[in-house]
Amino acid sequence: MMKDKDIDLVVIGSVALDSVKTPFGKSDYSLGGAASYACVAASMFSRPGMVGIVGSDFPKEHIDFFKTKGIDLEGLVNADGKTFHWGGYYEYDMNQAHTTNTELNVFADFKPHLTKNYKKTKFLFLANILPSLQLNALKQMDGSPFVAMDTMNLWIENNKEEVLENMKHIDLVLINDAEARQLCETPNLILAAKSILKLGPKAVIIKKGEHGAMLFTDGVYFSAPAYPLETVRDPTGAGDSFAGGIMGYLAKTKDTSIENIKRAIIYGSAIASFNAEGFGLQNLKKITIDDIEKRYKEFENLVDF
Amino acid sequence: MMKDKDIDLVVIGSVALDSVKTPFGKSDYSLGGAASYACVAASMFSRPGMVGIVGSDFPKEHIDFFKTKGIDLEGLVNADGKTFHWGGYYEYDMNQAHTTNTELNVFADFKPHLTKNYKKTKFLFLANILPSLQLNALKQMDGSPFVAMDTMNLWIENNKEEVLENMKHIDLVLINDAEARQLCETPNLILAAKSILKLGPKAVIIKKGEHGAMLFTDGVYFSAPAYPLETVRDPTGAGDSFAGGIMGYLAKTKDTSIENIKRAIIYGSAIASFNAEGFGLQNLKKITIDDIEKRYKEFENLVDF
Repeated sequence: MMKDKDIDLVVIGSVALDSVKTPFGKSDYSLGGAASYACVAASMFSRPGMVGIVGSDFPKEHIDFFKTKGIDLEGLVNADGKTFHWGGYYEYDMNQAHTTNTELNVFADFKPHLTKNYKKTKFLFLANILPSLQLNALKQMDGSPFVAMDTMNLWIENNKEEVLENMKHIDLVLINDAEARQLCETPNLILAAKSILKLGPKAVIIKKGEHGAMLFTDGVYFSAPAYPLETVRDPTGAGDSFAGGIMGYLAKTKDTSIENIKRAIIYGSAIASFNAEGFGLQNLKKITIDDIEKRYKEFENLVDF
Repeated sequence: MMKDKDIDLVVIGSVALDSVKTPFGKSDYSLGGAASYACVAASMFSRPGMVGIVGSDFPKEHIDFFKTKGIDLEGLVNADGKTFHWGGYYEYDMNQAHTTNTELNVFADFKPHLTKNYKKTKFLFLANILPSLQLNALKQMDGSPFVAMDTMNLWIENNKEEVLENMKHIDLVLINDAEARQLCETPNLILAAKSILKLGPKAVIIKKGEHGAMLFTDGVYFSAPAYPLETVRDPTGAGDSFAGGIMGYLAKTKDTSIENIKRAIIYGSAIASFNAEGFGLQNLKKITIDDIEKRYKEFENLVDF
């Protein structure tokens, strides 16, 4: 019997207040953070539980918004102090984020704590946080959940051994093209993907922004197009909403076959494209499952020959 | 009745002797040039006629090779002097060609001259030469052939008005991502493609190297993946063999519908991928139509979800 509190997926990562500027607008201390984007995206398909930390300044309206999306907040710690703050901007070419300031605040002392209800979950997404915290969370899980992990250039540079160690314990890695080249020390993404597979994960997704994504597993390669966006208003959270969409779909369908991961990638791409078209979480607050299904069908046409 | 001399496609461009160095090898005064790569690729499907110029130093073995591929050489001028020479190298990241020297030699005075037999051809590929020569050749054609055009950053920088003028007279533009951004002064490739369509051509193909290619026409967008190459030995001629493969396939099938252009792009991608795996024209000398058909089927699997 499914209880009210039962969740499909645990997401661990940052919850932040972002100040972002792009050529199309700006935001001040708006809802952000990898776990926020990933959970909102995942909530399109299933019921995620969020593991993270916020400060006493975190607006109640964001909590209420999470709740309207069916996001479980048992794992969200409310601490004394200020919420993690990220400030950054994008120039005309929006492929590159420029960070102006990062204030960790309460996030500096964050230690993930998984409750009994969370530990038994069958899907776990380790969004981009310190690799040692990712591993700590993973080890708290009961049984053998399907685990996906994101990472970033900072950890590859400063905590490479930990990133490599984590690879042994997970099923799916999400990594962007520059990070894959950096981690594997090769300009060739196909070779990079094969190197990563040798580290342990069953599948690798290389995210290429405007060029789409690639999925690699043993003997299978899948190329997913990007949705042709004429206007990218704010790329913040693109990778997190992509990953959240993938994990939300997998958790809903309870099918981690390669064929289903391909479908999940298209759903994730659809959600990420809506996200980039709007500022911050603006668009993800508005879209419905019908919008997503419609865009999924458009993806089918994009590659049909 | 088809005579021995009847051709399906006219290709206008450079025939060169290239000296190329990559991390995987080097060549000295080997067969090169846009028209060479494009004609050899097109010859996989149909009978191209080559319009270009070589000097008295041009080895007879290359002439013999063109003939074995069924390439008609009525339009290839043999002039006194030295053949066009290009010298360049690629570093570990092979996306960027570095030119060390360009010696135009007999190519400096090249004026395309189309014979009666060539003028009545239904397909014309204007490979990358001075835009005014492209237009000159185009105007010599009888009737309304299907015309495709390539260009390069040098002409966009120095002869932009001529490049824009040419766009009014052609059916299909092939342009790489950086050139499209440069020509249309936008980082967004979708907007760039739409701007180019407004200049006149019916279709635009944006070449993205390792990220594949995109086809845009009025209301249709198609995303073609790149073949996952673990080893790129020499990217020289990738764009030319891609274009030659496309035009050779269109000329063979005599079908310029969008659906057939999509198929042609996949055939062009297959040939270009073989080309990049070998040094210079090495691989295009070896592969058969069966190899190409087999790789075409692999492309179907790459995007299937």
